[in-house]
Amino acid sequence: MDIKDYMQNLGCQARKVSRILARAGAEEKNQALEMAASFIEKESQALVKANHKDLATGRHAGLDEALLDRLTLTEARIAVMAEGLRQIASLPDPVGAISDLNYRPSGIQVGRMRVPLGVIGIIYESRPNVTADAAGLCLKAGNAVILRGGSEAFHSNQAIARCIHQGLEQAGLPREAVQVVETIDRSAVGALITQQEHVDVIIPRGGKSLIERISQEATIPVIKHLDGICHVYIDDRADLDKAVAIAVNAKCQRYGVCNAMETLLVAREIAAEILPMMGEHYRGAGVELRGCPETQGLLPYIGSATEEDWHTEYLAPLLSIRIVAGLEEAIEHITHYGSHHTETIVTEDFTRARRFLTEVDSSSVMVNASTRFADGFEYGLGAEIGISTDKLHARGPVGLEGLTSQKWIVLGNGHIRE
Amino acid sequence: MDIKDYMQNLGCQARKVSRILARAGAEEKNQALEMAASFIEKESQALVKANHKDLATGRHAGLDEALLDRLTLTEARIAVMAEGLRQIASLPDPVGAISDLNYRPSGIQVGRMRVPLGVIGIIYESRPNVTADAAGLCLKAGNAVILRGGSEAFHSNQAIARCIHQGLEQAGLPREAVQVVETIDRSAVGALITQQEHVDVIIPRGGKSLIERISQEATIPVIKHLDGICHVYIDDRADLDKAVAIAVNAKCQRYGVCNAMETLLVAREIAAEILPMMGEHYRGAGVELRGCPETQGLLPYIGSATEEDWHTEYLAPLLSIRIVAGLEEAIEHITHYGSHHTETIVTEDFTRARRFLTEVDSSSVMVNASTRFADGFEYGLGAEIGISTDKLHARGPVGLEGLTSQKWIVLGNGHIRE
Repeated sequence: MDIKDYMQNLGCQARKVSRILARAGAEEKNQALEMAASFIEKESQALVKANHKDLATGRHAGLDEALLDRLTLTEARIAVMAEGLRQIASLPDPVGAISDLNYRPSGIQVGRMRVPLGVIGIIYESRPNVTADAAGLCLKAGNAVILRGGSEAFHSNQAIARCIHQGLEQAGLPREAVQVVETIDRSAVGALITQQEHVDVIIPRGGKSLIERISQEATIPVIKHLDGICHVYIDDRADLDKAVAIAVNAKCQRYGVCNAMETLLVAREIAAEILPMMGEHYRGAGVELRGCPETQGLLPYIGSATEEDWHTEYLAPLLSIRIVAGLEEAIEHITHYGSHHTETIVTEDFTRARRFLTEVDSSSVMVNASTRFADGFEYGLGAEIGISTDKLHARGPVGLEGLTSQKWIVLGNGHIRE
Repeated sequence: MDIKDYMQNLGCQARKVSRILARAGAEEKNQALEMAASFIEKESQALVKANHKDLATGRHAGLDEALLDRLTLTEARIAVMAEGLRQIASLPDPVGAISDLNYRPSGIQVGRMRVPLGVIGIIYESRPNVTADAAGLCLKAGNAVILRGGSEAFHSNQAIARCIHQGLEQAGLPREAVQVVETIDRSAVGALITQQEHVDVIIPRGGKSLIERISQEATIPVIKHLDGICHVYIDDRADLDKAVAIAVNAKCQRYGVCNAMETLLVAREIAAEILPMMGEHYRGAGVELRGCPETQGLLPYIGSATEEDWHTEYLAPLLSIRIVAGLEEAIEHITHYGSHHTETIVTEDFTRARRFLTEVDSSSVMVNASTRFADGFEYGLGAEIGISTDKLHARGPVGLEGLTSQKWIVLGNGHIRE
């Protein structure tokens, strides 16, 4: 079959079963998730075997070690994947929740009901666990999903899909609720992201170039995550202990993550006091520092930060540092160079904290807390499908709620409009 | 200046002042709205004069009467426009509202703050009052707006913009908060809807072809309204008085509106009882009826509905009628032919009402109320910028809330992630 027809067929099936899923009760959906988790555990050897095929192909194709690591399914990772599905099963069902049902002067009652989006297309790379996570979240939110993983994880994704299908069947739900694209032909992506009649939203997960390409070519709304150039601003009214703890944690707790700090901004008045101390911490942790000329004056052993540094998401043990006059200049820097992801201020000053919260236009804005908290689990969403840097629909960590929408409901007793 | 540069410049200005607007207090914004309303009243003669220019040009160009009527500004319409701005001023300010601020197990407090979207581009046709309404709503929600009205209303829109600018200046807000495109060159639209760096969302208001073209060509998210093929389903357990009142009101209260009923579905069991009565009502109101063969059997004087009729938004005194077996078939018809706008069931049966509310996938789903209630004012939004038939972000009537987004805020006391 030609790829376009094949993808159209997947879309058509997804649209069809999306109506069944929208009506499915929490019990059926949770049973499917729990059964899928059990099958994943039971089939862990088969999963490892399928994964070995992908790893062998990947090694042969010369994939680098980091990529091969992301691709690898171990028994431990398989257990985490199963546990993830059980966690999703334990979350409250968002579908059908009615809020703000109030009487209007006309006598009608007006409220909103939470409903699934319909059909979600997810395009991702390497990590096979996304197959289970994304399928689980979409299913719980009552959506049909079409998953298009990376070609390097082809056999692993198919094996995981088989477990999910078994779970769906055991729960009496259609297996087309979760469809994994069974071709590595690249044109499948193009056919998926232009199928307005069958797909309601596309969620790409992966590198920036993948996401940019998909956003440009899609004719369907895209929930996307671009850069995470996160900032910590240490105000001159900061508590120094909190400042050190947060600035170290935001950078060093994990490097390759989107909510790690990439640029540290320090108020001039306390720079001389705090920066030498911070410098030692970062040196000890093996973080390479690059500073503005003033920072270099205080830390003569560090390199110089270029214009490009302020624009860069390092995702590595690398940090740029800039001394600013105060809050105003910090916000200006963030507005100019930031990516609207996550920013934090360390201060004991109430009014400055309030201004930072109000004026910084990022998906997460924090006071006296590490940027590393910007995460669906930490925010209490239970799980996340990704972190959105968009402004419409979902902003920041996207959980089950972001995979739903609200429709209006109106209850009357024969009411007509005068 | 070349059009693309001109539009880029508007976008750049809008982005710049959007930061000022995001911080503007409710008082400043309300003052600007109220002053603009006063200027509109004071300048009503100038507005009528500007409008006469447009009307003369329009007549010369051979615009039809309906279009000329939509284009006309009378003293009464100008008063309504000013009153609209005062109403927007009286609405609560959505910006800065914090919700669900709760402690998490880690000790951080996590909540959401409502914030403006940033810069909104609005593309509309003929009716000059949209200039004031849309500017007012965008301003109140803290957004900068770029307005691109129809070329036929060029002078009217410019005159209204001058009043709004005076209002903004009196309140100490930048006049670039509301920018009206000062060229009738059609390429201005293309330049506006592809300016990702400066414009956050596009809202087209007008005919279906305009909206479809913009959705296809925009590289920015679009909040759009396509068809309103609304259905009323009269169940066999309906109260007949309510059924007649609703079915007549939904069709006849106003014809050219998106929330008017276009197709009436009647349960077979009560069709013979109710349809002859309904037929008389519609005949009396001058509504042309087209029915399925079974309906024609009961109402021999009516025409036959073709497949195309079920797909058509008449926006006219025209109604298609179909007899269905019951709830199931009614929902199937709506799913197949509907436009996900507004649907209502008339029934006294609790479980059927509940199923209809849950299973019908429309932006408004009603029980025992006229579809004509699907409206921002009736829903208590105060005003609406349009009715969205999209699923993401805003669904149904879009008020101030739909012109905002929510960011996450995190408050800590030196909290770091373990």
